[in-house]
Amino acid sequence: MHPLVEKILQGDTRSLARLLRSIDDRAGSYIEALTELYPHTGRAMIVGITGNPGAGKSTLTDQLVAHHRRAGKKVGVVAVDPTSPFSGGAILGDRIRMQRHALDEGVFIRSLATRGNLGGISRSTADTVRAIDAWGADVILVETVGVGQDELEIARLAHTTVVVMAPGLGDEVQAIKAGILEIADVFAVNKADRDGADSTVRDLEAMVAMGHELHHGGIRKGPHHGPQRVDMQALAEAMGDEWLVPIVKTVASKGQGISELVEAVEKHRSFLFDTPSGEARRRQRVEAELLNVFRSTLVERAVAALQTPLHAAASRVFDRTSDPYSEAEALVRDFASTVTAAPR
Amino acid sequence: MHPLVEKILQGDTRSLARLLRSIDDRAGSYIEALTELYPHTGRAMIVGITGNPGAGKSTLTDQLVAHHRRAGKKVGVVAVDPTSPFSGGAILGDRIRMQRHALDEGVFIRSLATRGNLGGISRSTADTVRAIDAWGADVILVETVGVGQDELEIARLAHTTVVVMAPGLGDEVQAIKAGILEIADVFAVNKADRDGADSTVRDLEAMVAMGHELHHGGIRKGPHHGPQRVDMQALAEAMGDEWLVPIVKTVASKGQGISELVEAVEKHRSFLFDTPSGEARRRQRVEAELLNVFRSTLVERAVAALQTPLHAAASRVFDRTSDPYSEAEALVRDFASTVTAAPR
Repeated sequence: MHPLVEKILQGDTRSLARLLRSIDDRAGSYIEALTELYPHTGRAMIVGITGNPGAGKSTLTDQLVAHHRRAGKKVGVVAVDPTSPFSGGAILGDRIRMQRHALDEGVFIRSLATRGNLGGISRSTADTVRAIDAWGADVILVETVGVGQDELEIARLAHTTVVVMAPGLGDEVQAIKAGILEIADVFAVNKADRDGADSTVRDLEAMVAMGHELHHGGIRKGPHHGPQRVDMQALAEAMGDEWLVPIVKTVASKGQGISELVEAVEKHRSFLFDTPSGEARRRQRVEAELLNVFRSTLVERAVAALQTPLHAAASRVFDRTSDPYSEAEALVRDFASTVTAAPR
Repeated sequence: MHPLVEKILQGDTRSLARLLRSIDDRAGSYIEALTELYPHTGRAMIVGITGNPGAGKSTLTDQLVAHHRRAGKKVGVVAVDPTSPFSGGAILGDRIRMQRHALDEGVFIRSLATRGNLGGISRSTADTVRAIDAWGADVILVETVGVGQDELEIARLAHTTVVVMAPGLGDEVQAIKAGILEIADVFAVNKADRDGADSTVRDLEAMVAMGHELHHGGIRKGPHHGPQRVDMQALAEAMGDEWLVPIVKTVASKGQGISELVEAVEKHRSFLFDTPSGEARRRQRVEAELLNVFRSTLVERAVAALQTPLHAAASRVFDRTSDPYSEAEALVRDFASTVTAAPR
């Protein structure tokens, strides 16, 4: 057995931190540790918290941590900061705000920055979440800034994704794409004491209703963004077994709406575990999880095995005696023969 | 020969547009077309334009197009919009602004959104750029919003990357990470008629000088962000053959500073083609290009070949009779044997 595994399963925080460092560095025998830990995962509820900068994700996350701690639950927080040279220190500042939980043994907080590794940030995030799950967290909150492909992938790895909006950030609801419905399981309209909160809620309701109509044919008459409100009750009934994305108003800075948000997330958990559509969602989640591990394993393995041929191929392309497409084909074959030639 | 290749090489815009649609859809024999076009690429100067939203990238790009057109050059523009459900309609609006070039036969404009394909947006962007290069563009401007891992990769595919900043967007220069120096070949301080432009320039100068010191030991005394200005002239002399990132002030909305910016980009081109360090950079660029094609080819091929085993493996993981790590290992072997078994 991997030396850290037993201690992590006993809830030892320092051993968990050590494993996470190996995951970050993709060093040591972290894969063995994760393989051994895997049978002990699956207990934690993984909740993604995403949305535009300025929506108040970190304050909301902080309040969710406090709420779950009061209920005696162990909580993990993974904050993903996509390394952009432009993303700035905002997330760092947010982390400092979370410090009030730093001395709480029942909370484990981890920030992840893209390291430019080939596996990508979504692989590191998934590995980190699994390790924290095995450590015994009841809830794991994965906070991401809502930009880029990587983060959509991370959203796919959560059981429930909360999309956080704030009123007055421009006409953002109109601007956001329909794709948001693919990832949102719950909408939180944060800073709901500000002007425009109701109109944000109405816009989201219209969007949810419209998304439903796109899939199932209209149950609502009139223009999509008309002045009349959507009858969410009727919509919920029409949807039957399916999940209707709820919209919860919160004022995270004052702790308002947090219980309602937790309730919505728990309702989604029941949907996932108690309904056939929910089971289908959980299967999709596991498929995404496997694809994520497979893809990064494949690429890491190939690049490590082909250092010399890759370099030689690049020289040929540079000299224009070859092209990247033909070389990529040849390299795929090269890699395959290295793998099949290796002893099992 | 692929039916579109000859026409593209003759500069036919409609054939180019058709190939780009195949690239987007990853459909048809687009790989053959790209392979045949490759020997005819390498002539265009590929310039990345990146920076925070609000820095004025699109207006600057528009002005650069106009400038190059006045010089009789053929210009390609590729605007990359990372599909985030949050990214909003901003880029779409910018595209509309570019319409004044839409009827100009010497300009080809293309917007790319992430399609969630496995190859990723950086692969689609690189393929698109190569096709526009073969079509005969002298300059290809690749505009990206400065967020996320994908866009750093796209920056690596440009010959020259211009990072656009604007004063008064918060204390952004202090906040941005040192990583920015890895991708910036030229800084444009746009909206330079606004308050704070000089201080943005000074901050960037300090950053450039500091980056230089990190690599080569100090040539400057005193605190890094001290009040005194960096002597960029002396720094340039000390750097000899190496590239010192220039900082150009522009007011894109009034067409100011555009010639100076083009001059800086052309100076970087001379550096790339006339110096040993420049050659090393061009080699790195080709390696990144090859790695990009190889990685997406590998993953696309593997996922296509392994649909059934992937599904079966996911079921085992879902039932908890297996784990994603062991399954990923087995799938890598499966894939290798499919490739080696296939006729060449």
